Amino acid sequence: MKGAVLHGPYDVRLEQRDDPTIVEPTDAIIRLSATCVCGSDLWPYRGTDESVGAAPMGHEYVGIVEAVGPDVTTIRPGQFVIGSFFASDNTCEICRAGYQSSCIHRQLMGAIGTQAEYARIPLADGTLVATPDLPSDDLIPSFLAASDVLGTGWFGAVAAEVGPGTIVAVVGDGAVGLLGVLASRQLGAERIIVMSRHETRQQLAREFGATDIIEERGDDGVARIKDLTNGLGVHSVIEAVGTRESMLQAIGSVRPGGHVGYVGVTHGDLPGDQLFFSHAHLHGGPAPVRRFLPELIDLISARTIDPGNVFDLTLPLDQVAEGYRAMDERRAIKTLLTL
Amino acid sequence: MKGAVLHGPYDVRLEQRDDPTIVEPTDAIIRLSATCVCGSDLWPYRGTDESVGAAPMGHEYVGIVEAVGPDVTTIRPGQFVIGSFFASDNTCEICRAGYQSSCIHRQLMGAIGTQAEYARIPLADGTLVATPDLPSDDLIPSFLAASDVLGTGWFGAVAAEVGPGTIVAVVGDGAVGLLGVLASRQLGAERIIVMSRHETRQQLAREFGATDIIEERGDDGVARIKDLTNGLGVHSVIEAVGTRESMLQAIGSVRPGGHVGYVGVTHGDLPGDQLFFSHAHLHGGPAPVRRFLPELIDLISARTIDPGNVFDLTLPLDQVAEGYRAMDERRAIKTLLTL
Repeated sequence: MKGAVLHGPYDVRLEQRDDPTIVEPTDAIIRLSATCVCGSDLWPYRGTDESVGAAPMGHEYVGIVEAVGPDVTTIRPGQFVIGSFFASDNTCEICRAGYQSSCIHRQLMGAIGTQAEYARIPLADGTLVATPDLPSDDLIPSFLAASDVLGTGWFGAVAAEVGPGTIVAVVGDGAVGLLGVLASRQLGAERIIVMSRHETRQQLAREFGATDIIEERGDDGVARIKDLTNGLGVHSVIEAVGTRESMLQAIGSVRPGGHVGYVGVTHGDLPGDQLFFSHAHLHGGPAPVRRFLPELIDLISARTIDPGNVFDLTLPLDQVAEGYRAMDERRAIKTLLTL
Repeated sequence: MKGAVLHGPYDVRLEQRDDPTIVEPTDAIIRLSATCVCGSDLWPYRGTDESVGAAPMGHEYVGIVEAVGPDVTTIRPGQFVIGSFFASDNTCEICRAGYQSSCIHRQLMGAIGTQAEYARIPLADGTLVATPDLPSDDLIPSFLAASDVLGTGWFGAVAAEVGPGTIVAVVGDGAVGLLGVLASRQLGAERIIVMSRHETRQQLAREFGATDIIEERGDDGVARIKDLTNGLGVHSVIEAVGTRESMLQAIGSVRPGGHVGYVGVTHGDLPGDQLFFSHAHLHGGPAPVRRFLPELIDLISARTIDPGNVFDLTLPLDQVAEGYRAMDERRAIKTLLTL
C-alpha cells in the first residue's frame, strides 16, 4: 500500500509500505476513507521533537472495516468506523473513568501511521465506534474531524468546564481552537472570545460561534480580555497551542477559581508561581477522544454541528507533502487527504 | 506594642512597634490571643525570597476585638475572632465564587504582621469570623490552626477532590500536609498515604488519619505509591511543599484523571510536558481559608477535630526568634506563640 513517511525535517513522502495484517486477535484492518494532517504532526515535521530515522505519519482516520481478528466481537467488516489517536481497551479502570488516552493498554496510532491506504487498529472493540449506517460522502470530513481535532477541542471545552452562562476565551486559532469554539457553543457558553489575527480563521471562528475576536497577543491580549470581563477575566480558557507563551496568555486571562483546559501538546515548562497565584484550575493532556465519540457521531449524523468546515484544503493522498507544506506555512488551517 | 520584625536572613527580633489604629472605617483592631510561625515565613527567613529592609512578620491570628471602625456592622468589640492571611470583602464576585484570597479588594496580612500584641484587620466584616462564645483556653490552638494551616490543608484536600472512597497521597509532612491528612479523613477518604521520614510527624499523621506511611522520595516514592494502587496511582494528591521536586512527586503519583491540590507556595517552574501527559487536574494557590472558616469553627467547637495538636512547641511571643529557629531546623513542626 501507499503511506506517508517522514524522513527528516520538512521531508515527508508518500511511498510503498507493507500492507497491514491482523497481528493481535483484537485487531481490525480498515481501508481509509479519508485521513488528514494534524497540527501536532508539524512538531516532528519541523524537527522540533527528537526523531529517529524514517517514521510513518498520521493518526486521524475514518474508514471501512476490511477484516477483524478472532477476538473482535462488536466491530464487523463493512462498517464505517471512527477511532482516535490512541487505541484503548475501553474497559480498564482508567478508560471507565473517561481517560481512554491513558488506557493501561493504550497504543499510539501515530506509530502505526494512518496517512495511508490501510491501517491496523489495535483493540478494535475498544477503539472504534461505528456509525449507524454508511454515511453520505459530505459527512465524511466531519466524521474525520471527530477523530482528533473536534474531540480534542471538545475535551478542551469540557476540561475548561464550559457550560451554560460561561464566558470563554480560546487561545489558538488552529483547527483545535476553532472546534473548541464550536464545542463551547454546543455546551452553552454565553460569550466566546477568540484570539486570532488571521482573517479566514476569524471568519470560521464566527461561523462556529465566536462572539468576540481579539487580535492582540501576550500581555496586550490579556489586558483586552480583562477589559471585556469587568477586570475579572473569563471563567474558562481553552488553550490549544502548547507553548509557554500561549499558556501564560491562558493563565493571565482566567479569573480566580476559573478553569483552563489545555490541549496543545505542551512544550516547555509552565510558570509555577504565576499558575499558583492565578487560582486557576488546570486540566488537559492528550484528549480522551473516545469518551466523546458516540455523542459527536450523533451530533454530526443529525447535522447539528459541521466540524468538517475546518478543512480548507483537500488533496489526494499522493500530494501529502503539499498538505504538510500548506499547513506549515499557514496557508491552510487543516488539510484533508482523500483516497 | 511588641511585634516581630525580620531584619535579614535568620534575623527576626521582637521589638517595639507602633500600636495599630483604625485607618479605614471598615477596620477592626484585635488584641492577639495567640499567634504562630508559618512554614511560608521560613522562605523570607532563609532569604529565599527577595526582601527589602525590615519587615513585620506573621499572618496567623486569633484574638479579641478591641475596636471597630464606623462602617463595621457585624463584628463587635469583645468577640473572639479568627481571620486568615488575606483580608477580603467577602462580597465581590470572586469572593462569592469562594476565592476570598483573590478578592478584588484583598490585603495581605503578612504586610501588617500579626506576630504582635495587636493587629489592624482590614475589611473586618468580610475577613473575620467570630466564635459563638468566648472559647475555653484549650481550644485556642485549634482555632489558631484554622487561621491558616488547617484552612490551607483543607483547601488542598478540596482542591484535590478528596471525597468518600478516594485514595489520597500527601506530599509534605509539615503542618499543612498533616492537616491535609485530617481534612482528608473528615472528607471521607478511604486511604491516606503520607510521604514522611520523620518519626514524630509520622506519628501525628497517623493520629490525624493516615493509613500508610512512605519513607521513599522522588521516583522511589512514586514507585511505592504505584505499588500500593495496582499500578494506577492515587485519585488525589495534596502537594504541600512548593518545590519542583515535590510537584514532580505529586504529578507522578496521581492517576490519569485524578486531582492534585497544591498549596505549597510554588517556587520554580512546573514540568509542562509531564503535567500534560499525566492527565491530572491541577488546582491550588493561596488557600481561600475564609471560605472554610465557618465550617472549621463548628468542627472545632464540637471537638470533632483537633488541629491544634499540630503545634509541638509553645513559646511566649518574646521568644519568637527561637520559634523560627526550631522550625527552620525542623526541631518543631509548628511554633505557637503565647501572649
